[in-house]
Amino acid sequence: MQFSLKAVFFDVFGTLVDWRTGVAREAQAILGPLGYALDWGAFADAWRAEYQPAMEQVRSGAIPFCKLDALHLHNLERILPRFGVASLDSERKRELNLAWHRLDAWPDTATGLRRLKRKYRIAPVSNGNISLMVDLARRNELVWDAILGSEVAGDFKPKPRVYLAACEALDLAPQTCMMAAAHPGDLLAAAACGLRTGYISRPQEHGRSAAHVPPKEPFDIRADSVETFAERLGA
Amino acid sequence: MQFSLKAVFFDVFGTLVDWRTGVAREAQAILGPLGYALDWGAFADAWRAEYQPAMEQVRSGAIPFCKLDALHLHNLERILPRFGVASLDSERKRELNLAWHRLDAWPDTATGLRRLKRKYRIAPVSNGNISLMVDLARRNELVWDAILGSEVAGDFKPKPRVYLAACEALDLAPQTCMMAAAHPGDLLAAAACGLRTGYISRPQEHGRSAAHVPPKEPFDIRADSVETFAERLGA
Repeated sequence: MQFSLKAVFFDVFGTLVDWRTGVAREAQAILGPLGYALDWGAFADAWRAEYQPAMEQVRSGAIPFCKLDALHLHNLERILPRFGVASLDSERKRELNLAWHRLDAWPDTATGLRRLKRKYRIAPVSNGNISLMVDLARRNELVWDAILGSEVAGDFKPKPRVYLAACEALDLAPQTCMMAAAHPGDLLAAAACGLRTGYISRPQEHGRSAAHVPPKEPFDIRADSVETFAERLGA
Repeated sequence: MQFSLKAVFFDVFGTLVDWRTGVAREAQAILGPLGYALDWGAFADAWRAEYQPAMEQVRSGAIPFCKLDALHLHNLERILPRFGVASLDSERKRELNLAWHRLDAWPDTATGLRRLKRKYRIAPVSNGNISLMVDLARRNELVWDAILGSEVAGDFKPKPRVYLAACEALDLAPQTCMMAAAHPGDLLAAAACGLRTGYISRPQEHGRSAAHVPPKEPFDIRADSVETFAERLGA
């Protein structure tokens, strides 16, 4: 690298973990025994589709910051009727909402992070809350130096505050930090704050049959797994 | 245990790392070559003695919250003249201030935490800032689930907010969390917030010749190392 890199920040949903498969599996495990037979992938997609509009309420200042778990629950309550799930008791709703805490990492994630940690500080800079990140890390053996992101910043990506708060937490200039994500918008927002950018391709994020067009933006590095990403960074 | 424990929070300075030996060693390494021959242990003690009064400025609301690193630097500038160190350039001051990032853990800390993590969520709930905790963890291979404490709470222990913010970050009721520390005041403040308490005896925190009187308060458990502490908690 032509620059002195100290830390790598990671987007999590889609970039490190397969949210669609996991949410579909958890929804089926909880709603299936109650007699529901939904298109579980479509259910996961619908839930995820409420994600940005809900966060926009916070980013715009319309509602105060809250944990992503709270937005997820609100979003779940919005989509359940659309799938014909009329009444679900609050305990089951809570359990289903925690589907996002029980997602599996892509196969290269844990080993790639372990390599990166030898050379760089690594932290999730996700819109997920701390407890959600802790649960995903414990489930998938992700070896973070710290949990940064929305809850530490008090706002949601792609607001600049979230990227800058992560750099500040580690006492690092943005130029010595890299944001790694499968989503160009996340990377462009980080770049606007002065961070380096690493694109990790996840063509199966939206399912095996979804179309995937590689982005054209000029990111600092590109990789198709966290392991090759680590290799590119000399870790 | 008679209660359902989910997380253990740790005080760090004194409880997990030996600040006095480390600060004395770092001060000698930086100031010694400049011709200073101080009582390095006394220097460490003097620096540490400024710790509570400086934090009290924040706790009382007299000054806004800032990282402990900033208070440490301010405190360093107060004590240097007392030890006859008249002029130290700002780069060397900054380097000396980072002595607190280069402390060694007590020999039982890393292995004890590794055991505890198998069964419980574990996090530092220290007055140290995130970057300081990250550096200590990397140096000593401490396997935290998250870095909680003063910087996440925006205040310093023993203010209730710091303990409660840690519980809230993990979505846990205080009754399912335990504060572990070598300092009764820290534990009593945590207990007042509803947390369980674990006392870890560190008779050498203030040096080998310092007097040590075991506290009489009724803590939930007592141990003389993190390893025996883990054992008591069935981990």
